[in-house]
Amino acid sequence: MFYIINILGIISFAISGVLIAFHKKMDVFGILIIAFVTSVGGGTLGDVLLGNTPVGWMEDIIFSYIILGSTVFAIIFRSKINYLRTSLFLFDTIGIGLYTVVGIQKGLNAELHPVICIALGTITASFGGVIRDILCNEIPVIFRKEVYATACILGGITYFVLILFPINNDVVFIISGSVVIVVRLLAVKFKIALPNIYSSEKE
Amino acid sequence: MFYIINILGIISFAISGVLIAFHKKMDVFGILIIAFVTSVGGGTLGDVLLGNTPVGWMEDIIFSYIILGSTVFAIIFRSKINYLRTSLFLFDTIGIGLYTVVGIQKGLNAELHPVICIALGTITASFGGVIRDILCNEIPVIFRKEVYATACILGGITYFVLILFPINNDVVFIISGSVVIVVRLLAVKFKIALPNIYSSEKE
Amino acid sequence: MFYIINILGIISFAISGVLIAFHKKMDVFGILIIAFVTSVGGGTLGDVLLGNTPVGWMEDIIFSYIILGSTVFAIIFRSKINYLRTSLFLFDTIGIGLYTVVGIQKGLNAELHPVICIALGTITASFGGVIRDILCNEIPVIFRKEVYATACILGGITYFVLILFPINNDVVFIISGSVVIVVRLLAVKFKIALPNIYSSEKE
Repeated sequence: MFYIINILGIISFAISGVLIAFHKKMDVFGILIIAFVTSVGGGTLGDVLLGNTPVGWMEDIIFSYIILGSTVFAIIFRSKINYLRTSLFLFDTIGIGLYTVVGIQKGLNAELHPVICIALGTITASFGGVIRDILCNEIPVIFRKEVYATACILGGITYFVLILFPINNDVVFIISGSVVIVVRLLAVKFKIALPNIYSSEKE
Repeated sequence: MFYIINILGIISFAISGVLIAFHKKMDVFGILIIAFVTSVGGGTLGDVLLGNTPVGWMEDIIFSYIILGSTVFAIIFRSKINYLRTSLFLFDTIGIGLYTVVGIQKGLNAELHPVICIALGTITASFGGVIRDILCNEIPVIFRKEVYATACILGGITYFVLILFPINNDVVFIISGSVVIVVRLLAVKFKIALPNIYSSEKE
Repeated sequence: MFYIINILGIISFAISGVLIAFHKKMDVFGILIIAFVTSVGGGTLGDVLLGNTPVGWMEDIIFSYIILGSTVFAIIFRSKINYLRTSLFLFDTIGIGLYTVVGIQKGLNAELHPVICIALGTITASFGGVIRDILCNEIPVIFRKEVYATACILGGITYFVLILFPINNDVVFIISGSVVIVVRLLAVKFKIALPNIYSSEKE
């Protein structure tokens, strides 16, 4: 279950990376690298911080093949994927939902404090995209728009509330990941943001 | 002593991060993440390079609480902190002074060469701010202005000169950190810069 | 042999870093840091991903002295180095050729899959420059222009084809590294690029 979520996250982020690399008119190897970095960047950072080395994708060649396959798929069907203007956003959102859960699980395996696990989930979910944005010289969207980090943190809190109850672990995974995805989708759709703390200022 | 310096560095950098995140109009979770990255970024990079994993803040939950507390404090009293135009600069400078010493100590614990210890001190002191600036899409100030790296390196050299004498270790810490802070403050106040190596060129 | 290639790569990248830092009018310590980061950035990232910590340059002080020496040399003779407009490009290209081989060798030492070794070679070769560009607030050239990643990957493939034959390992190193350098030089000289996948679009 954990493994499948990881794979789905890789595919989602790889396609999201390919779509941004398209926009930047990169050559095919450049596209592949951006897809790679977006897919494994957050998880790799998490592994490095935990000391899980060599990091995940280096020890399991299947990740590389999946990224390669997703990239080729996205390049071939780019006209159809591009057609949906919302597709990049959607794949990105699914990716952060899945990876938040993956990161929390890694933190639990290392027996870390719940607060640290949530931080690790947020890092795993968001830093692949952050690295992608920095490499593409885009402003990382995470810190300003679209309730990115907020969604991850709420999903993480959901996880640690749910495991207080006698619920199957896989179900907790699915619900927590879904919370991340739904929070972000709703926030963007209805332009919900956190309470504005800047209202009283004129700076 | 070492632990207290570390804590003070975390508070200084957290507040410096909050102030920059304010400028960028981030939401509260975004502010928290920038405060977090600024506080622990340099030390985390140092830990990762040394192989001290899981990195410091993951194993000691107190760091997270201090960052959270500093962030809440800075948000609540932001009008007063903002009032002082120099406050960001000041907190940043105190942070680099403290962290230079923390990084050198980590290098000594790993029995590294003094030159490498100074490099590690400089990394620990400056890369939290560098990562903060990159995430905020600001030009990292370190490499061009305000004698940033120079101050760290001079503080590091001070450290290794002082330990040749029979001085208490805590005193050496305090003097070296103060050198970093004073050098930077004086350099900015009197617009002192390193000898200009570009004068003979017209490029 | 492996050690000599590593040293030559460090010198090439250090000088390439100094030249960019000149352009940015950094002070001498800023120049030193950029030279340092450019030289050891890619290899350090590779070491961190593999868990080879403390990373290479921390355990072997000779690296720091070579970077320091190269930096002083490049500063003193900057007018002559600057004269050659192509010099930055040339040093950069030699550096990626040498480091691709260094990264592949590290992957082989860790008994990783050939595809992962090529990825590691590409990371080792290119991320010093990427980090340099990000710190200098330049657009990282790797992903768009000059067949950067493509050259590394082709060099890596050459390596794994050649070791199928009974050829001396040092010779394989030299040929693979040369492939990277030649591919990049030819591609830039004749403006060769990968097949354009954007022709059918008008976006």
